[in-house]
Amino acid sequence: MGADVRVVLIGAGRAGLVHGRNFAAGVRGARLVGVCEPDDQARESALAELGCERGFTDPLEAVADDDVDAVVVASPTFTHPDITVAALKAGTHVLCEKPLAASLDEAHAIKAAATSSDAAFLMGFMRRFDQSFRRAAERLHVGDIGEPLLIRSTGRGPGLPPRWAWNTDLSGGMISEVNAHDLDSLRWLTGQEYHRAYAVGRAAKRPDIAESNPGFVDLVTVTFELTGGAVGQVDGACPADYGYDARVEIYGSEGMLHIGDTRANSTVLVRSDGIVADPVTSWRTLFADAYRAEDQHLADVAHGLEEPKTRIDDGIAALEAAIATNQSMATGEPVHIDARLRDGSRSGGSGTPGGAGETNPTRTVHH
Amino acid sequence: MGADVRVVLIGAGRAGLVHGRNFAAGVRGARLVGVCEPDDQARESALAELGCERGFTDPLEAVADDDVDAVVVASPTFTHPDITVAALKAGTHVLCEKPLAASLDEAHAIKAAATSSDAAFLMGFMRRFDQSFRRAAERLHVGDIGEPLLIRSTGRGPGLPPRWAWNTDLSGGMISEVNAHDLDSLRWLTGQEYHRAYAVGRAAKRPDIAESNPGFVDLVTVTFELTGGAVGQVDGACPADYGYDARVEIYGSEGMLHIGDTRANSTVLVRSDGIVADPVTSWRTLFADAYRAEDQHLADVAHGLEEPKTRIDDGIAALEAAIATNQSMATGEPVHIDARLRDGSRSGGSGTPGGAGETNPTRTVHH
Amino acid sequence: MGADVRVVLIGAGRAGLVHGRNFAAGVRGARLVGVCEPDDQARESALAELGCERGFTDPLEAVADDDVDAVVVASPTFTHPDITVAALKAGTHVLCEKPLAASLDEAHAIKAAATSSDAAFLMGFMRRFDQSFRRAAERLHVGDIGEPLLIRSTGRGPGLPPRWAWNTDLSGGMISEVNAHDLDSLRWLTGQEYHRAYAVGRAAKRPDIAESNPGFVDLVTVTFELTGGAVGQVDGACPADYGYDARVEIYGSEGMLHIGDTRANSTVLVRSDGIVADPVTSWRTLFADAYRAEDQHLADVAHGLEEPKTRIDDGIAALEAAIATNQSMATGEPVHIDARLRDGSRSGGSGTPGGAGETNPTRTVHH
Amino acid sequence: MGADVRVVLIGAGRAGLVHGRNFAAGVRGARLVGVCEPDDQARESALAELGCERGFTDPLEAVADDDVDAVVVASPTFTHPDITVAALKAGTHVLCEKPLAASLDEAHAIKAAATSSDAAFLMGFMRRFDQSFRRAAERLHVGDIGEPLLIRSTGRGPGLPPRWAWNTDLSGGMISEVNAHDLDSLRWLTGQEYHRAYAVGRAAKRPDIAESNPGFVDLVTVTFELTGGAVGQVDGACPADYGYDARVEIYGSEGMLHIGDTRANSTVLVRSDGIVADPVTSWRTLFADAYRAEDQHLADVAHGLEEPKTRIDDGIAALEAAIATNQSMATGEPVHIDARLRDGSRSGGSGTPGGAGETNPTRTVHH
Repeated sequence: MGADVRVVLIGAGRAGLVHGRNFAAGVRGARLVGVCEPDDQARESALAELGCERGFTDPLEAVADDDVDAVVVASPTFTHPDITVAALKAGTHVLCEKPLAASLDEAHAIKAAATSSDAAFLMGFMRRFDQSFRRAAERLHVGDIGEPLLIRSTGRGPGLPPRWAWNTDLSGGMISEVNAHDLDSLRWLTGQEYHRAYAVGRAAKRPDIAESNPGFVDLVTVTFELTGGAVGQVDGACPADYGYDARVEIYGSEGMLHIGDTRANSTVLVRSDGIVADPVTSWRTLFADAYRAEDQHLADVAHGLEEPKTRIDDGIAALEAAIATNQSMATGEPVHIDARLRDGSRSGGSGTPGGAGETNPTRTVHH
Repeated sequence: MGADVRVVLIGAGRAGLVHGRNFAAGVRGARLVGVCEPDDQARESALAELGCERGFTDPLEAVADDDVDAVVVASPTFTHPDITVAALKAGTHVLCEKPLAASLDEAHAIKAAATSSDAAFLMGFMRRFDQSFRRAAERLHVGDIGEPLLIRSTGRGPGLPPRWAWNTDLSGGMISEVNAHDLDSLRWLTGQEYHRAYAVGRAAKRPDIAESNPGFVDLVTVTFELTGGAVGQVDGACPADYGYDARVEIYGSEGMLHIGDTRANSTVLVRSDGIVADPVTSWRTLFADAYRAEDQHLADVAHGLEEPKTRIDDGIAALEAAIATNQSMATGEPVHIDARLRDGSRSGGSGTPGGAGETNPTRTVHH
Repeated sequence: MGADVRVVLIGAGRAGLVHGRNFAAGVRGARLVGVCEPDDQARESALAELGCERGFTDPLEAVADDDVDAVVVASPTFTHPDITVAALKAGTHVLCEKPLAASLDEAHAIKAAATSSDAAFLMGFMRRFDQSFRRAAERLHVGDIGEPLLIRSTGRGPGLPPRWAWNTDLSGGMISEVNAHDLDSLRWLTGQEYHRAYAVGRAAKRPDIAESNPGFVDLVTVTFELTGGAVGQVDGACPADYGYDARVEIYGSEGMLHIGDTRANSTVLVRSDGIVADPVTSWRTLFADAYRAEDQHLADVAHGLEEPKTRIDDGIAALEAAIATNQSMATGEPVHIDARLRDGSRSGGSGTPGGAGETNPTRTVHH
Repeated sequence: MGADVRVVLIGAGRAGLVHGRNFAAGVRGARLVGVCEPDDQARESALAELGCERGFTDPLEAVADDDVDAVVVASPTFTHPDITVAALKAGTHVLCEKPLAASLDEAHAIKAAATSSDAAFLMGFMRRFDQSFRRAAERLHVGDIGEPLLIRSTGRGPGLPPRWAWNTDLSGGMISEVNAHDLDSLRWLTGQEYHRAYAVGRAAKRPDIAESNPGFVDLVTVTFELTGGAVGQVDGACPADYGYDARVEIYGSEGMLHIGDTRANSTVLVRSDGIVADPVTSWRTLFADAYRAEDQHLADVAHGLEEPKTRIDDGIAALEAAIATNQSMATGEPVHIDARLRDGSRSGGSGTPGGAGETNPTRTVHH
């Protein structure tokens, strides 16, 4: 392994600080050298805590700096395209937090930049590094449940998304901000692609926000038909009063798999008024090991020791599914997710598996 | 309590024998006096095991017998209408196994008979008598999770439905045969009615059966919009290789409820190759207590000690939801469930809550 | 199967009514014909509830009645010897609730009566009929954990024993009243006999009771060396504030087995202040099926359909272990349990496996 | 925080490498500068993996080096006294892996050195840093279960101790090598001291080892009377075929607490032949976070940011309990643990709470 990869953190918000602290605590072969954050107080606070010297206010400056080898992009979704494209053009490795972008046009612009860059692009789907998810993937791979027929992924969080994310044009909405991980898990675990979506959403807890933010929901369920015939379901909610909840269930031809647990630790109190365990309250604790492994992966990829485990196409596929979900919620109808979009080619026949309700091309996800 | 209610079992199949054995083991205030079953061997075997003398081959004769006070109807679905209508006209109490019938016309004919009869009609939704389901209903009632916003019910069974039930015209299909309980649970636990359905089904494990049985599926998922705004989801599958699985999850504004467990007993084996528990293999064991309580309820209702806890409208509502599910699977489109149907009135405005996609009246469930 | 076995319940207390209600609800081949209970109100109330006519105040009269075939002895421990001996002499089958007796002399008197009687004697160790315990026994039998090396059984209950049982001379103390089941489980599950005991007890919650009742404890732990080399531990407590708790753990040469669960049902509430399940509150619910199976077993044994699954020697062995526990608590020293006692022979060599501390004959359990 | 604490690892065995890797991955305010390991291959391999340059073969040289601020002592137990005393005399901070030493004389020599040194001495009881154990301690502290009355701690591991540890004179035996953590937990969680012990041990799986190693056991159970009246039990076993197992149960006057889980992750496979989870296979994974926190604690204590959370008296108390356990196993009798020993004073009255069996002074743990 050569010299340490010099990493700059873009965005010192909650997710950003998770990465920042990982690097500050130590990632083999990498070193956090700076933080880019427009908010002065947040930046200074992060620099002090993380023990690094270089503060940036302009991400485009940071990604182009000769002394920066890699960036972790944890700024708001709508800033991802400009930052990641500039980074890739400058040859700077990118670990991009989810969601990739708010529109497919932007996503494909990033893909174009990634394709022509020598730098690596990693999509921030940290569940692929979580031991329980990996164990399930392994069990699927060896056929423990036969063929996956139905997969359901639940993603709920205790807090509202940040205010800017209430605007679905900027964020992609809750399905993208909160449930991008679920959208990735369905593809990853089944090996199948998105084909058709039907979603129902509600602004059940915060109708007030929905009044001024069209498309805002705090509860979403979406049913996908996948290209291999499996059915996928995602349900998301936030703010979920009880904590952070990430569970997946896969029904297969020869068994079933569960992933996830709402318990935060192994301590159980037994009293006459109840048997009580502590709920998981944050993705920061539940996936602490996964984030560490993801950050290590960035270093290892930058050193050429590993092939990227999450790619831009994973981000694009999740985005397509999210857009279809939003369209279906808006129209109340199923939406076809055209596989052509995934390879960037907008012309030619679909070639995707047929299915009921595919006849209306106006429902196709487009960008 | 007066003289014992004299009960005849109609149908000596699997579900029938569960009831039969309960009565044979002893139900307070009731006595099993006969078995009606056209198959000679099954009837004689049941009579011998259950220790009762009167064998019937014709259910219409059994229900009209002066020495019969109540019947448990556990014959195939398509026979329910004739039998239950005759019983009700003869003043014989009815506990009718799910599903109520295969068509809404028949269901309403039974309702008409029930309305004009002095005899009680109980719908065989035994989960309403299960302690775990009841405990959840109690928690919902006292507001432990606030308002229910999303409810998901999973119902899977290890065996294929009987061959006659592969014909969805006779049975209502898997969603009705296997998941009628789930369809009832959604209404019961939320107190909301069905409004709109979107379903995806697959004949994933047995495409061979689907070839000659249009509408046959062995996997179904359906998303309902309920009249109070909650979202409901049912997923069903059979044959589920791993056993019998009945679980419900309710996400509410202030918490979440789980019902159900795939473990059959409390014995756990811990070995280096796995921590192993036994799966539930049958509804007969999982709901043994619930069936006992349901049969006791029949006796108590017949004696006037209790009001019916499950009514014909519960059976009709589940049937409407099942029919909408089948329609949605067939068309690939959402289906509107018209609330007018529930009160038997076929004319006039709908009066149901609005929602996306309600504009197409041709999608309405009708009969 | 011939005529119904006519059963009389001796003692209409808590355990008695469990049996009484089982027979009233229906046991194949048996019929509850009477209740013997000196307390007028309790007797009349039981007769009314259980729907039987014959009331007895004198158990010796009941067991000798020509129209009584079997008795369930659920009266206080100190009454067991007279009642069971009289029943056995009269040829009346006996299901005797635990503990067998309060002294070994009495236990051997019962054994002598049982040996010379044609009637069956069943010891009320209902855990042998519980499905989780039976499943564990089956796993042990097929070698799932290899050889059992350490077995620990926990038995705790929410209520104090009845006041008469605070006198250890009448009851055998908590280890016998509450933990007789645990003492039986160790032998049953390992197939080994008691050899040596060391116990520590406390009157931790109710020192007031201990002041006037020598030997009273509300917490007991005892470590046994078993004849096959395994180590056994029992811990008991009551009143246990949180509910009823019956769990066993067996560490074997190739794995571990757990039996038991403190959860009463499968409903789980997830809230920010805790993930909450309901605790088991009573042996009446936890072992309801086991008591039913035990009562059915009485009928089946009486009809000659089954061999007794629990025998008087099981009761004697549990009593020996209990007495040794009480002696060890009193002296603070280990106590040798002499296997000679088990065959009723008071002379001759021990023949039991050797072990540390066997040299002091004054520690031997005697009667 | 000033300059990084320069840490040298003493012993590059299994436990040593856990610490080494933690420091290599990054501990705030600390830096691993060297490894001391007599085995050339192990030392070179560790230096390469951990990325540090200074290799030592003589621990006494390492602890006295002017450029070494702290050592983690993870060498065999019998080497602890010389190394830790030398380190403390040199003013080098010590984190000493359990057990403290093999004899009380040595333990008190270390204590004397620690008392007169400015350097900190931390005992390696990492469970005090584990989130589940800490949560239980917090619940105890706020009175969630009232007063602790019975505490049981299970510690089992999949592998045999290293060969040198089979000699109980060098290691203190299994109770000390494997169960030192349990012995510490009892005191820590109850706030009570050891008073009396009775132990039963077996060489059940490896009688061959016991033949040439007097006192070797692979299964041990010990019951302690604690000074506040609580009863404590520890059971240990290795090699436990099924994995690594660390569980504690505390019965209190108002409830019960469980700590620990045998499941390694949240993935569950449900199949007809069993519901299967993965067992924990190593303390390295189960307590990974705890070891990290412990190593961070060393850095923080060295910087004066925190007071030591584990002290030499904790190590001495666990050693006293272990020695009493070994004595009791050898004699088959209870052993009194004299509290006088804890303050290093060998004269004067005991002052400890009375209890059964205290009359025989020859049973007192001595050194």
